[in-house]
Amino acid sequence: MHLFTSKFVEAPEAVTELPGSVTTPDGFFASGIAAGIKKSGKRDLGLLICKNPTSSAVMLTRNAAEAAPVTVCKSDIVLKAVQGIIVNSGSANACTGDDGIGDAREMVKLASASSQVEPSRMAVASTGVIGQKLAMDRVVSGIAEAISELSEHGGNDFADAIMTTDTLEKKGAVEIELSGGKVHIGACAKGAGMIAPNMATMLAFITTDVVAPSDMLHEMLGKAAGESFNSVSVDGDMSTNDCVFMISSGKSGVALEPGSEDLELFTTALGAVCKGLALKMVADGEGATKVVELTVQGARDEGEAARVARAISLSSLVRTAFFGRDANWGRLIASAGAALAGESKLEADIFYEEVCLTSGGAAIEDPVDELRLEEIMAADEIAVTLDLHRGDSEYKIYFSDLTHEYVTINAEYTT
Amino acid sequence: MHLFTSKFVEAPEAVTELPGSVTTPDGFFASGIAAGIKKSGKRDLGLLICKNPTSSAVMLTRNAAEAAPVTVCKSDIVLKAVQGIIVNSGSANACTGDDGIGDAREMVKLASASSQVEPSRMAVASTGVIGQKLAMDRVVSGIAEAISELSEHGGNDFADAIMTTDTLEKKGAVEIELSGGKVHIGACAKGAGMIAPNMATMLAFITTDVVAPSDMLHEMLGKAAGESFNSVSVDGDMSTNDCVFMISSGKSGVALEPGSEDLELFTTALGAVCKGLALKMVADGEGATKVVELTVQGARDEGEAARVARAISLSSLVRTAFFGRDANWGRLIASAGAALAGESKLEADIFYEEVCLTSGGAAIEDPVDELRLEEIMAADEIAVTLDLHRGDSEYKIYFSDLTHEYVTINAEYTT
Repeated sequence: MHLFTSKFVEAPEAVTELPGSVTTPDGFFASGIAAGIKKSGKRDLGLLICKNPTSSAVMLTRNAAEAAPVTVCKSDIVLKAVQGIIVNSGSANACTGDDGIGDAREMVKLASASSQVEPSRMAVASTGVIGQKLAMDRVVSGIAEAISELSEHGGNDFADAIMTTDTLEKKGAVEIELSGGKVHIGACAKGAGMIAPNMATMLAFITTDVVAPSDMLHEMLGKAAGESFNSVSVDGDMSTNDCVFMISSGKSGVALEPGSEDLELFTTALGAVCKGLALKMVADGEGATKVVELTVQGARDEGEAARVARAISLSSLVRTAFFGRDANWGRLIASAGAALAGESKLEADIFYEEVCLTSGGAAIEDPVDELRLEEIMAADEIAVTLDLHRGDSEYKIYFSDLTHEYVTINAEYTT
Repeated sequence: MHLFTSKFVEAPEAVTELPGSVTTPDGFFASGIAAGIKKSGKRDLGLLICKNPTSSAVMLTRNAAEAAPVTVCKSDIVLKAVQGIIVNSGSANACTGDDGIGDAREMVKLASASSQVEPSRMAVASTGVIGQKLAMDRVVSGIAEAISELSEHGGNDFADAIMTTDTLEKKGAVEIELSGGKVHIGACAKGAGMIAPNMATMLAFITTDVVAPSDMLHEMLGKAAGESFNSVSVDGDMSTNDCVFMISSGKSGVALEPGSEDLELFTTALGAVCKGLALKMVADGEGATKVVELTVQGARDEGEAARVARAISLSSLVRTAFFGRDANWGRLIASAGAALAGESKLEADIFYEEVCLTSGGAAIEDPVDELRLEEIMAADEIAVTLDLHRGDSEYKIYFSDLTHEYVTINAEYTT
């Protein structure tokens, strides 16, 4: 019951949050065990399967240094009909050469062997340190254990097994009242390195019992991801291991028809689930104390709005100012101006929540309500609006502040 | 005698470092006084002039939110014949609307009034907090004092007066033995927010007594800046206030002829001076403990090499790893792969100094000399090479690590 905790997520009335995650929708079995890949001894191997034929949609990283499991998913797996996923944390199996490809294939083979899922339907994912080979002896015995532990209530263990530096749980489930009956979405994700998300692995697993063909799932997932995972993924780029998997068991018997209100409602619900997960990633951005929703509006087109929004969200000067509770709008203007270098003079307005601090590119003359501003800057979530006054397009992005804790975590991660 | 302290700068034999800065070349007068613009009471107003006609070259920010002094330089000043510069620190006079433009014009007028320099030859620059109006009463009395303090030995005071969060001095002078006689270059700069340099003001002032027309100065300065200030300016973008000014008094009587060896030698010397200043900015990157020289080679073209180099140098994950003395090459690969998203599989080599850690995109099989690697990672300066194996082009960039001190400085700067 902890998915919709941010003020930036709105779920429709017909959507009810449930406790649970990927095994909440009917037809899914999961497990998460400690195979000994992580030095900490925590859960590090997860298995998720659906025993009946399914439809699915998969988004894989476009990073030119894609990890071995990504290569294997692209080359060996029927991505429209994924029935199972074997995933490990602790080691990314990236930059591991041909041996890494062999290890990823071995994971697929072992996971499919005793779980009634064809190898071509068993996807594979990894997250963790880049450039280390998987300890395959541990993975082999781990997979055997993960298969024996598969359960309709294994969603939470699976969610635990995919975490690396995460400190917040990122999972949840909803029930949606469609005209044809109740359907469910369950989900979990990992990802916490939100300062430069293009380099931080993000994995998300979404299950549902609605009946929908894979093309429909793919379209819905693309839209939902665009407004969630990709709006925190600052560069539009993805890490070596990023993946989003969505699998439908169809077990509810309730079908989504093209153009229907049910389809619209389900899409909205999926969007809220993805945004809930994505905002938890931002809030869990390593060392983060705040989430900022930045809306860049008044741009000539969405690309321009996105370019400015991304530049600002990447600025360490902007992000440390939020950590310092300092409404330092000058840093936003400087960053926006750099993103629009060589173009006509920027005459932007900036609002922190409802408080205007800059109008037409210059500091406002009227006295600012300093008490209200202090209250805004002290909050966990801050909405900031930058109006470029150049057109009608807008783009929203979510980012965290940059803190001492971030430096500590990332200076000490591998060694 | 502190300009060429980095192992990454090489000065030709005919170039001798001298104590001093912008007043070392013949014909220049400078001062730097405390006008009370900075709360700290430190020097915050500088004046540099050459009483005789000059040639000059000026590079101004392309930021779309350019500061008022930049606008005034572009609209009012003869940039090929600048004879004087009035500069303040403490307040950037950016995002200050029409009043800011008026204030910058007033600075020009006052500085030229009693200093024998035409207003159209008196450039103006500011650095400091964005969005605050200049305290013009203090500026007015300060300029009067700065004029009365002008001296042939005022270079150091001038250099002090342009600093904001800088903790290292960035100034120096050289004598160059040309075939026609000795000439000099003096210089000072400010800039320390190197984590996102596109948003950190960089000001540089370079003087010389060589005889050279402004077009020649402009060409030399463009080349020198490209391999120095612009190779630490991660985005190629510049802040609202960035400027580089180069003024020649011609007082040596020694002229540079097109195509001559003297011209080549002078250009090399100027390059070394600019690189010396730029590397001091990186080393003084707020809270920085290390300078990394990253060479991306084997790229299809220089643009591709630059794109990859900038992505890596901007990565907070990469930069915190250097702070942690962690040769975490996986983060470099991930960042390079993201910069080349959608392209063919990246099969790069990575070297930390002479130690190879990755070959063909995978971790090397041979054991690494861990003691040597530890020594490399503990050094103040680290050369890292990434070979993409895609072509023959290369690009060098210099960046600092990301530290706790950076967060402290930038979370607390304005309020």
